[in-house]
Amino acid sequence: MSIRRTHPGRPRLVPSSTAAPPREQVLHAAAQLFVTKGFAATSTREIADRVGIRQASLYYHFTSKDEILAELLERSVRPTVDRIDQIEQLTASTSPEAALYLLALVDIHTLAEAPDNIGMLATHPDVTSSDAFDAFRSVRAELAEAYGRMATRAATPGVAAAAEQGHLGEMLMHLVEVTTRLRSSGVPIDDATAGLIASTCLRACGIPDSRIAAAASAATPLVGDRHSRTASP
Amino acid sequence: MSIRRTHPGRPRLVPSSTAAPPREQVLHAAAQLFVTKGFAATSTREIADRVGIRQASLYYHFTSKDEILAELLERSVRPTVDRIDQIEQLTASTSPEAALYLLALVDIHTLAEAPDNIGMLATHPDVTSSDAFDAFRSVRAELAEAYGRMATRAATPGVAAAAEQGHLGEMLMHLVEVTTRLRSSGVPIDDATAGLIASTCLRACGIPDSRIAAAASAATPLVGDRHSRTASP
Repeated sequence: MSIRRTHPGRPRLVPSSTAAPPREQVLHAAAQLFVTKGFAATSTREIADRVGIRQASLYYHFTSKDEILAELLERSVRPTVDRIDQIEQLTASTSPEAALYLLALVDIHTLAEAPDNIGMLATHPDVTSSDAFDAFRSVRAELAEAYGRMATRAATPGVAAAAEQGHLGEMLMHLVEVTTRLRSSGVPIDDATAGLIASTCLRACGIPDSRIAAAASAATPLVGDRHSRTASP
Repeated sequence: MSIRRTHPGRPRLVPSSTAAPPREQVLHAAAQLFVTKGFAATSTREIADRVGIRQASLYYHFTSKDEILAELLERSVRPTVDRIDQIEQLTASTSPEAALYLLALVDIHTLAEAPDNIGMLATHPDVTSSDAFDAFRSVRAELAEAYGRMATRAATPGVAAAAEQGHLGEMLMHLVEVTTRLRSSGVPIDDATAGLIASTCLRACGIPDSRIAAAASAATPLVGDRHSRTASP
């Protein structure tokens, strides 16, 4: 992202002729600052400065810094959660393994495409300690439950017996979140990397490689158009 | 941890007769604040207040808030890294699977025992963005490399061919770090949970359950006395 300075001290993220709507610019600038400096250390003044608007204009779009973070966090999980029902219905027509593989792939894409790697913020103290993010935490819990349910369905009897559904779900969700770490290390989340992470989820459920290959073949064409999964503004 | 007020407004964490050394009290109070409020939002004044000492006394032990966090982060990884050589030597006498299982178990114990779940802080922007934590990041990279090396040795040929060593190491380390998430959700990191996480690491390497059971039997007695792995102050 290049910064063009229109006036001294008033950097704009993008030339105004091609600029995203101001609300999106605020979200983008805030995500960059939250991820690099942390949430608490970032002020709404800094966010406004980076966009090149006055602080009052920022408050026209958002009532608080919490609201900005809540919206960003929502975007790191909502596109996945919105597809859970559809993915679970696949279990009937394909296999539980293919459904779990697809859930992982969709989640990896959501995390890979979330602006400025904001998925990294999900477990930060600022988020876990404040009730301003209750709604996000409850959506996230919904995703963890889906992982647990679908993993238990796909797992070998040995793994299903050894792992409590909730813990298995938490582990797989955490495993997929390595996407944010690889991304922040500069590793491109290409098809090979996404496939590796999704396959590892299935291996964690005890599924042998021969069945993983079949699950990957069944699931990959179903990931779908990425744009259709973009969170609404 | 009960708080006994010796003077109004001067809470002490523990009665002074049984108190930990002041330096440890500072670390403990700081860990609690960093994990619940975040690093940036915590002042050295607050840390001193919580211990019941003056801010000047805190600066007798630590030159900065960064130094406190660096020490805490070190304790979330150093006890594991200090055992890497010993664990790798096991590969000769037992099996690569047993060695990897043991690395995971040792790491799970380190994260489970780190004061106030400070392992959670490792990926926070405050840590990843500041060069004050370069030393920690390099120790952590050492651990990721060990995971990659030992996982590649233990993995089935199919997994070893599919997963680049660095990415496999990062994934397994991230998987084990679910310990901090389960811990913050109130899940006790008992032997069953630790065994589940370590087994999942082996499954992620394609190792079948029969061999995982053997690896667990070989590795578990070698975890050793937890106290011997406590970081030096």
